[in-house]
Amino acid sequence: MKKLINKPEDVVKESLEGLGLAWPELVKVNFNPNFVYRADAPVKGKVAVISGGGSGHEPMHVGFVGYGMLDAACPGEVFTSPTPDQMYEAAKKVDGGAGILFIVKNYSGDIMNFEMAADMLKGEGIEVESVIIDDDVAVENSLYTQGRRGVGTTVLAEKICGAAAEKGYDLKRLAELCKKVNSWGRSMGMALTPCTVPAAGKPTFELAEDEMEIGIGIHGEPGRQRMKIKSADEITEMLAQAVIEDLPFKAGDEVLAFVNSMGGTPDIELYIVYRKLHQILEQKGIKVARKLIGRYITSLEMQGVSITLLKLDDELKELWDAPVKTPGLRWGI
Amino acid sequence: MKKLINKPEDVVKESLEGLGLAWPELVKVNFNPNFVYRADAPVKGKVAVISGGGSGHEPMHVGFVGYGMLDAACPGEVFTSPTPDQMYEAAKKVDGGAGILFIVKNYSGDIMNFEMAADMLKGEGIEVESVIIDDDVAVENSLYTQGRRGVGTTVLAEKICGAAAEKGYDLKRLAELCKKVNSWGRSMGMALTPCTVPAAGKPTFELAEDEMEIGIGIHGEPGRQRMKIKSADEITEMLAQAVIEDLPFKAGDEVLAFVNSMGGTPDIELYIVYRKLHQILEQKGIKVARKLIGRYITSLEMQGVSITLLKLDDELKELWDAPVKTPGLRWGI
Repeated sequence: MKKLINKPEDVVKESLEGLGLAWPELVKVNFNPNFVYRADAPVKGKVAVISGGGSGHEPMHVGFVGYGMLDAACPGEVFTSPTPDQMYEAAKKVDGGAGILFIVKNYSGDIMNFEMAADMLKGEGIEVESVIIDDDVAVENSLYTQGRRGVGTTVLAEKICGAAAEKGYDLKRLAELCKKVNSWGRSMGMALTPCTVPAAGKPTFELAEDEMEIGIGIHGEPGRQRMKIKSADEITEMLAQAVIEDLPFKAGDEVLAFVNSMGGTPDIELYIVYRKLHQILEQKGIKVARKLIGRYITSLEMQGVSITLLKLDDELKELWDAPVKTPGLRWGI
Repeated sequence: MKKLINKPEDVVKESLEGLGLAWPELVKVNFNPNFVYRADAPVKGKVAVISGGGSGHEPMHVGFVGYGMLDAACPGEVFTSPTPDQMYEAAKKVDGGAGILFIVKNYSGDIMNFEMAADMLKGEGIEVESVIIDDDVAVENSLYTQGRRGVGTTVLAEKICGAAAEKGYDLKRLAELCKKVNSWGRSMGMALTPCTVPAAGKPTFELAEDEMEIGIGIHGEPGRQRMKIKSADEITEMLAQAVIEDLPFKAGDEVLAFVNSMGGTPDIELYIVYRKLHQILEQKGIKVARKLIGRYITSLEMQGVSITLLKLDDELKELWDAPVKTPGLRWGI
């Protein structure tokens, strides 16, 4: 296993320590239970936005804590759901008195553990709304989910809802907004190579030298189809087609186009994919009004790409453009 | 070869097309000769800052074109120097009448071709200053260089000089500043895996499953030593030690600590490296006043990390903090 780590069992702890040392002006890190929270929390009168999930998808979620995005993120072990006490303690720490929004990716473990934390908090009179992100069009059910998996739209929901909370949206309106983002976002990914969970020490799956997997999940879960590697244009066409047809996105729509590296795929390839995606959208009369290109929801060192499209209206565009300052996403400030 | 590309010979062209389609508000792309330039160029009365080099190190340099950083970047083929006509035409396009600063990494081909372009421009009465970046402490001479290679400090010089040009530094003062950044910056890198140049179709070198290379160059050039893989803490110690001793950085110094992924190494590992680096610096009484952590000067999909330290004074801190808006680096705007 070729990784820059010390002991496999210390990967998450030491990486969080590094994050805290690097960005003391933005975040603090709590251990046992593990969560990352805004250095200036709680922000009085603001709804606190909290997400979390297995580690290994960085910068999501711990790299998205800060002004204009998350108040706290709860990282589980690599590709493992966080436990309810993480979300419970994080919520207690960042609660500004206006309630808590949980943004939860649709994986059975995450759903169950966020729900338990929500019940504990509600028992103490803290208002909690949970919104499930299930935007992956690749498969209807999968290894770790009932229903669709939550992938790229999560990043967009965290940015947009974080901005709205900063603007003063109340809990009910914020939860409605998050549901709108989820209902307007669609994603699909693919992998050229697998990745290795440190504790396992070997790749999560195998792909032959000439093979790729279309519709893969962010934990390496099986997707739609394994096939011989095709060209970047053909791959982009396959992903874009599935995403566009699903909503469907239509001529006249404005979208945010999000081209995401699964981790190991470099910029030079991401822009080749973006090029084709842009051309496909243009041909269909769909306007790219905003874009995000880079590594935002990853699967460790996996090589591959995912495409997310989010339909935009004026509200979403304004919230997308609002200032954000986190270790993993920053502009306007 | 597992890559998201179409034809190997179209990689650079199509990736640049994607960059131009993605960021029309920031950059324009010229083909034949290839260069990327600020959408609002020329900026009258401002020194134009231009860099360039082989492709495959993205976001450096083409991703650093925009407000507060580069006026133009000239990308060669993957790991191949750009030709003089690229720099010549780019300079003509972005010349705002206050002269041109070339920031050149110390590789023989780059040096020669930037020099030829400078001579052509000077022949037309355009003032040009060239500053060489040679910050890599790993080896004294190498495969493609006489003297030290130019690596991580290049990114920092482009940010800092871009900000200074925006602030109105004249050409002479800007060149002095760039030399100061180079003289105060030191770097060293390592690789866990090689990378594959698309046109070659096979890895640039081989490393056994249990081997790493310390002091590697950004084109996979041999470094100081090949050895069995060590822990992240030991690797960080080796890199940091070599960098710190070289300047040397001393107790009381303030530094910018830059932990850079060679491409394939994910955030979760970068922060484990940052953690140890921060601890080492703290023990030595060296204060991390600024930091940069991510993928900024890469070697395609290579797994590995480089550490750059830059000594800071008030001038450099202020210029580092100044607003920047490019596809690859953005804050404050």
